[in-house]
Amino acid sequence: MAKKDAPKNAFYAQSGGVTSVINASACGVIETARKHRGKIGKVYAGRHGIIGALTEELIDTSKESARAIAGLRHTPSGAFGSCRYKLKSLEENRAEYERLIEVFEAHNIGYFLYNGGGDSADTCLKVSQLSKTLGYPIQAIHVPKTVDNDLPITDNCPGFGSVAKYIAVSTREASFDVASMAKTSTKVFVLEVMGRHAGWIAAAGGLASDETTELPVVILFPEVVFDQDKFLAKVDAMVKKYGYCSVVVSEGVRNPEGKFLADAGAKDAFGHTQLGGVAPVVATMLKDNLGLKYHWAVADYLQRAARHVASRTDVEQAYAMGKAAVQFALAGKNAVMPTVVRSSNKPYRWKIGEASLSRVANLEKKMPKNFITKDGFGITQRCRDYLAPLIKGEDYPPYRNGLPQYVQLKNVAVPKKLDSEFKLK
Amino acid sequence: MAKKDAPKNAFYAQSGGVTSVINASACGVIETARKHRGKIGKVYAGRHGIIGALTEELIDTSKESARAIAGLRHTPSGAFGSCRYKLKSLEENRAEYERLIEVFEAHNIGYFLYNGGGDSADTCLKVSQLSKTLGYPIQAIHVPKTVDNDLPITDNCPGFGSVAKYIAVSTREASFDVASMAKTSTKVFVLEVMGRHAGWIAAAGGLASDETTELPVVILFPEVVFDQDKFLAKVDAMVKKYGYCSVVVSEGVRNPEGKFLADAGAKDAFGHTQLGGVAPVVATMLKDNLGLKYHWAVADYLQRAARHVASRTDVEQAYAMGKAAVQFALAGKNAVMPTVVRSSNKPYRWKIGEASLSRVANLEKKMPKNFITKDGFGITQRCRDYLAPLIKGEDYPPYRNGLPQYVQLKNVAVPKKLDSEFKLK
Repeated sequence: MAKKDAPKNAFYAQSGGVTSVINASACGVIETARKHRGKIGKVYAGRHGIIGALTEELIDTSKESARAIAGLRHTPSGAFGSCRYKLKSLEENRAEYERLIEVFEAHNIGYFLYNGGGDSADTCLKVSQLSKTLGYPIQAIHVPKTVDNDLPITDNCPGFGSVAKYIAVSTREASFDVASMAKTSTKVFVLEVMGRHAGWIAAAGGLASDETTELPVVILFPEVVFDQDKFLAKVDAMVKKYGYCSVVVSEGVRNPEGKFLADAGAKDAFGHTQLGGVAPVVATMLKDNLGLKYHWAVADYLQRAARHVASRTDVEQAYAMGKAAVQFALAGKNAVMPTVVRSSNKPYRWKIGEASLSRVANLEKKMPKNFITKDGFGITQRCRDYLAPLIKGEDYPPYRNGLPQYVQLKNVAVPKKLDSEFKLK
Repeated sequence: MAKKDAPKNAFYAQSGGVTSVINASACGVIETARKHRGKIGKVYAGRHGIIGALTEELIDTSKESARAIAGLRHTPSGAFGSCRYKLKSLEENRAEYERLIEVFEAHNIGYFLYNGGGDSADTCLKVSQLSKTLGYPIQAIHVPKTVDNDLPITDNCPGFGSVAKYIAVSTREASFDVASMAKTSTKVFVLEVMGRHAGWIAAAGGLASDETTELPVVILFPEVVFDQDKFLAKVDAMVKKYGYCSVVVSEGVRNPEGKFLADAGAKDAFGHTQLGGVAPVVATMLKDNLGLKYHWAVADYLQRAARHVASRTDVEQAYAMGKAAVQFALAGKNAVMPTVVRSSNKPYRWKIGEASLSRVANLEKKMPKNFITKDGFGITQRCRDYLAPLIKGEDYPPYRNGLPQYVQLKNVAVPKKLDSEFKLK
């Protein structure tokens, strides 16, 4: 057992869908904690997120070299494993919370740093209340992360800027390609992007075209009910004007009946629904109605894992959020989340803010209406002004033999101290 | 009309599917020609490839600044427009050849530089014979280009190395992602890549895993008849060992009946076949038979347009091929193509070679059998040794406001000199 006067250890875990910069936050957490060994003993990471805390599968990050931890800054994905697991309420599953306390106590854990999105903020909030609800002294700080950019209060979420950059760059590149082919072949390119509920990522496709590089890009947002006639007319007009067109479609686009367009599409030979995504549905629609030859792509994980084309702004903010979370912990705070506060657009300036978790948990930030053009197919200048700084700057990983050198940690287990096993529900 | 003693002009055109480095070849052609103005007058580019020659839609590249031409080196796609258009034989369509001569004569064109793959080499060969067949003096040089890497004689084809790098990098990144998620969510990631006939691009997915970074990657090659039971057993074994698995599947994979797997999949609500690609077919197969949660991506144009992650080797070779083509022209050669000759693997050394077009046209280079592992799902060391140098080195484009600055040329038309119009068949 830890000595009574030993500094408390910190528990850090990654939660939900990973991003290309969530490990940069981990890097910020661990490097900052290592500078304050008098106040924070070790950083134990949860193997597979909060599940690691419940099953007592902790990773001793002190076994990793400074170099390996520094490498997290340029390594995509969740180095300790993530999970999709939401704690129930105290009333619904008291045993989970008692188990957390049992594990925290056994490993002298006094800081809970949770790196995730909206659901995770809710988990973090519940843990932050353990001092009150179950008498176990703990400080819980949330480290924001989500490619969906849908957390409230913070100006933007680490993880989003790099996806946005990937989508903007890819849309620009593919548009150049289809422009070359349009005379005798492909006239429309459809790119499916993530974002079930909010169109932030789709909006980034609009950045592909700007004052220096004019490109015809039509965006389908989940915020805008899909109107097939208007869409066909829009693409038709673009192809008539430019000879070709790119379409960036959010996976969350719904038809007037409220059904995902993706679901309205394919059945396989056995009648199973939805083999494909929304991109092929939109592409064949253009072929069937306008006779346009198409190509389509589905970026899927490639977009959120693309550390090779990460935004420097995003990497810096992800690191800063991790660092700030530890500083908040050292300052004795609880139930808070560091935020990005934008103080100026041109030049872009931002600083760290602080949000109470009770104001963050389970709230989704949608795109403001004035970010979408009146016709529903593009982004406004206001949206550009918001997005532009978030994709700014490059931050290339080191390469060896033509490939980025991402870190695979040793992930040494902390010896278990408890006899009991905990069964996940 | 041009003076009799004026140096001959060159015609340059881009053909077939474009790549992220075909413009680097254009850059090599134009920059080199500009250094020899005494022997080559102007470089006229075909608007939309060979079609531009038939319709007398020529682009005067001399109207572009040195800076714009230099920018082609880092700009993906075909800056003058490409086309899918194959000249028929002289017997089948003599009018096409007579028209070419009419246009070449009107614009004092003595050099024909054609930038494309196997089909284009055939076109180039036919043009090279015009001196003999129709008495018009011309030198035709082919500039190799194809992401498919299937041209014979040359060690590799410009365009391929950058796609290979994109696929290797993306497979590595997505594998890190799915590894993070596998405990509670996605266990298998399927990436569909180009390559209808040859598995070169799919093979590049195998580079994602190497001695520094071990990752479970299963490859489905078009060269290997798809065996569902063996495939399921392979993925099952990988998931049992690693907890997750990535599958890189070539669009050209066929079942034992010789049908594309992609075709075996979806029908839409109206009974139209094949909305989707092969990735969702493979992914649902894994779900239905092994119960694995999946994600899938289709890279499509993104892979061949991804200049942002181009291979430096590839860019250098693409430029060198353009430069060599002009040097061949200056040396009085005809009906040839510059090639990449590999003189050493470690360290990688290559030089320019020369191939007769009659030995290049309409031949496809398949993957050697000893490049594929015995089980049919991976690449051998021999294949690695071949591929590794081709993805080596980075060659980032310049960025502004977070986006790569690709060149859009003015593409000023050469004034038409002919009254007659030519109708394309």
